[in-house]
Amino acid sequence: MIKQQVGVIGLAVMGKNLALNIADHGYSVSVYNRSAQKTDELLKEAQGKNLIGTYSLEEFVESLETPRKIIMMVKAGDAVDATIKNLLPLISKGDILMDGGNSYYKDTIRRSRELEEKGYHFLGTGISGGEEGARRGPAIMPGGEEEAYRMLEPVLTDISAKVDNEPCCTYIGKNGAGHFVKMVHNGIEYADMQLICEAYLIMKKVIGLTPPEFHEVFKEWNKGELNSYLIDITADIFTKQDPNTGQYLVDLILDVAGQKGTGKWTGQISLDLGVPTPTITTAVYERYLSSMKEERVNASKVLKGPENLDKKSKDFTEAVRRALYASKICSYAQGFGLMREASEQFGWDLKLGDIAKIFRGGCIIRAQFLNHIMSAYDKNHKLVNLLLEDYFKDIVGQYQMEWREVVKQAISAGIPTPAFSSALAYYDSYRSKELPMNLLQAQRDYFGAHTYQRIDMDGIYHTKW
Amino acid sequence: MIKQQVGVIGLAVMGKNLALNIADHGYSVSVYNRSAQKTDELLKEAQGKNLIGTYSLEEFVESLETPRKIIMMVKAGDAVDATIKNLLPLISKGDILMDGGNSYYKDTIRRSRELEEKGYHFLGTGISGGEEGARRGPAIMPGGEEEAYRMLEPVLTDISAKVDNEPCCTYIGKNGAGHFVKMVHNGIEYADMQLICEAYLIMKKVIGLTPPEFHEVFKEWNKGELNSYLIDITADIFTKQDPNTGQYLVDLILDVAGQKGTGKWTGQISLDLGVPTPTITTAVYERYLSSMKEERVNASKVLKGPENLDKKSKDFTEAVRRALYASKICSYAQGFGLMREASEQFGWDLKLGDIAKIFRGGCIIRAQFLNHIMSAYDKNHKLVNLLLEDYFKDIVGQYQMEWREVVKQAISAGIPTPAFSSALAYYDSYRSKELPMNLLQAQRDYFGAHTYQRIDMDGIYHTKW
Repeated sequence: MIKQQVGVIGLAVMGKNLALNIADHGYSVSVYNRSAQKTDELLKEAQGKNLIGTYSLEEFVESLETPRKIIMMVKAGDAVDATIKNLLPLISKGDILMDGGNSYYKDTIRRSRELEEKGYHFLGTGISGGEEGARRGPAIMPGGEEEAYRMLEPVLTDISAKVDNEPCCTYIGKNGAGHFVKMVHNGIEYADMQLICEAYLIMKKVIGLTPPEFHEVFKEWNKGELNSYLIDITADIFTKQDPNTGQYLVDLILDVAGQKGTGKWTGQISLDLGVPTPTITTAVYERYLSSMKEERVNASKVLKGPENLDKKSKDFTEAVRRALYASKICSYAQGFGLMREASEQFGWDLKLGDIAKIFRGGCIIRAQFLNHIMSAYDKNHKLVNLLLEDYFKDIVGQYQMEWREVVKQAISAGIPTPAFSSALAYYDSYRSKELPMNLLQAQRDYFGAHTYQRIDMDGIYHTKW
Repeated sequence: MIKQQVGVIGLAVMGKNLALNIADHGYSVSVYNRSAQKTDELLKEAQGKNLIGTYSLEEFVESLETPRKIIMMVKAGDAVDATIKNLLPLISKGDILMDGGNSYYKDTIRRSRELEEKGYHFLGTGISGGEEGARRGPAIMPGGEEEAYRMLEPVLTDISAKVDNEPCCTYIGKNGAGHFVKMVHNGIEYADMQLICEAYLIMKKVIGLTPPEFHEVFKEWNKGELNSYLIDITADIFTKQDPNTGQYLVDLILDVAGQKGTGKWTGQISLDLGVPTPTITTAVYERYLSSMKEERVNASKVLKGPENLDKKSKDFTEAVRRALYASKICSYAQGFGLMREASEQFGWDLKLGDIAKIFRGGCIIRAQFLNHIMSAYDKNHKLVNLLLEDYFKDIVGQYQMEWREVVKQAISAGIPTPAFSSALAYYDSYRSKELPMNLLQAQRDYFGAHTYQRIDMDGIYHTKW
């Protein structure tokens, strides 16, 4: 009996689409799902493709050529451990297990260690692009032993998105590196979305744009330096009308945002690693605030805001665009700063330029703008902060006055723009030779004898205040 | 042989001072430290007091009356576990172990469970006030079985700070509650200090105040609604001159802030519990930014800021004071919101009014203003957000326009005020009936089929965009 080349476990939407994608690229695929129904459904959809269904883990494992290449697309968390546990008695040393879910990178580090000690290969792999990406070409971030990656590389690069004929898949680094980078991708995505929403809110309140006008504005923006998937779909969203009421659908959607944890993790890890990512974390907090709908409605009746709103003309959209782009640059500076520090602390040797490169296609944050990040790191792979690279430095320098105007305008109007203003405060903090922490250190020394350093002499000092 | 009433293990500055404080209140005390030298030093200092030194854990445990009351003042982390492990073979069921360090509340939950299962009592107790507080009267936040607390209550209330003759010590809640509340106290302290520093920076840059003028301003502020320990010591700090150079010491201190983890934990847990605490987390991030001194100096040479600074007269200090007070209120609303949610999720039944009450003395954030928080919860212990209580609502409503002016002024001048602006964005978000997350939910549904709710109909919707 001829064995299949690749196995996929878990046929929810991501797993199913990934299996079809692999089969489309000429690989023979075995699939397995805990409930047979999903397997049967997929087989119907996959008629004519080299894809077979199996109905037990034994049958699944038996159907694969060795070393086996098994891609797990199960829910992050306990389900991954359970699947590994069930597979272990069936597979052989040298086989490759890949976890393609949104696993927490510390779990991936632990699983890598446990499996590699036993002689198995483990690839913790971030996959971005949603269901459409999984089906047609996602961005893929594989972490683990490089040797194991090389064995799956042909499959992964074939199924990944392509930009300029290059695959959006590259080896990221050891153990948890792939899932870490995917997590930061998602954190950046949170910030991108929050920034777009703030731009929308300002233009809605201050200029009074309508959905068709928003469509035009975002369509226009998508032709310039903001060109990206998220701006593109935002333009598209504003065209959709509710078939029943004829109203624009966006106006009928409840302003309560869900979230699934990767943004939260990014914030928590930035705090652990000592890297400031205020714009990303603020985006997470703002989703929490959005979910307090009833409280907000009550508060809106009693808490005072400014009474007069200074309306602006449509020209103001260009200032908002500049504020958005400058804020976006700061948010990416934070996210890439986080990856840089993680690379140091975990010994991953991350290639930040390659990471920017694979983010250009398949994934949610794909954008023209990533080309600039890619070249920034190509020019100087030790770049300490994106803001220091000529392109970004010049753009932000050129846009900063309008950025300030937009935030001030929002503050005057009582419009919350936490991400815009956190990005601006990050910029102003980062370019401050002097922050006021001389006073803070004096306070700490005063009440806790925590000591301080001086600007005029080396050493550690304590004062009896 | 007469046994001693209380034992203290660990004689670093906090332990030593606490032991002296206990002895001063008429209790007989045994002390033990791993190195005998500290014990000997303390004995010299404690001459005439009812305090004996012991030189082995056996001797220490033997010297105490039963049920033993043992206060551990060792470094948070492994040292606590090691001390417990060494004590266990020596102590008896019914004895009380109290951990008075800054332990992580999840460790305290684990230790409580392990010790209570074995029949011992465990009190995870937050103690705030630094070395001076430990010696003369700290704020004390005991967590654990209430029954165990009652046995130590006389000692703890006697040694605690007093405000209006009432002790700054109250039973907080089960297992990790005391350490959790202490952690949030510290998070609030981070924000308080950051806010004062931002006020200082604005007045320094925009008005050009000198240290003697700052002394006057903060002294004046301390007479009003900002009256607090931190404002008081800040006024004091500005009087100190460097004996060698004659310059004001604050101007010679390096603007690089240290931190010890409790602020970071507060931010991380707020993300876990889904509670927005942007002002606290921003204060932590700003310490990280402060520590990037070399990067900042380099960046200051290349990143552009505004060129003209609009100077203000001394009258502007009142606007800054109002901005500071409004921001402080938002920061406390966040911190108390975090405790409220933790109380729900961990089943602690926290009495937020009592917590505000004990924060009024001994601890670093002690302030007149806590009386208002206390009364707010006395009036309505189910208050969902401090901002909704009349006093706070009115003050912030009255100050908000000047608060906005100050933040706008800082933004115009390129002065980083991340805590001021995050507090303002929190205020404006919280009082927003509508946030722009309708667009965000549309985006999530577009790329990930995450579904959304509608404002005009119940149910969960997905659109083929």
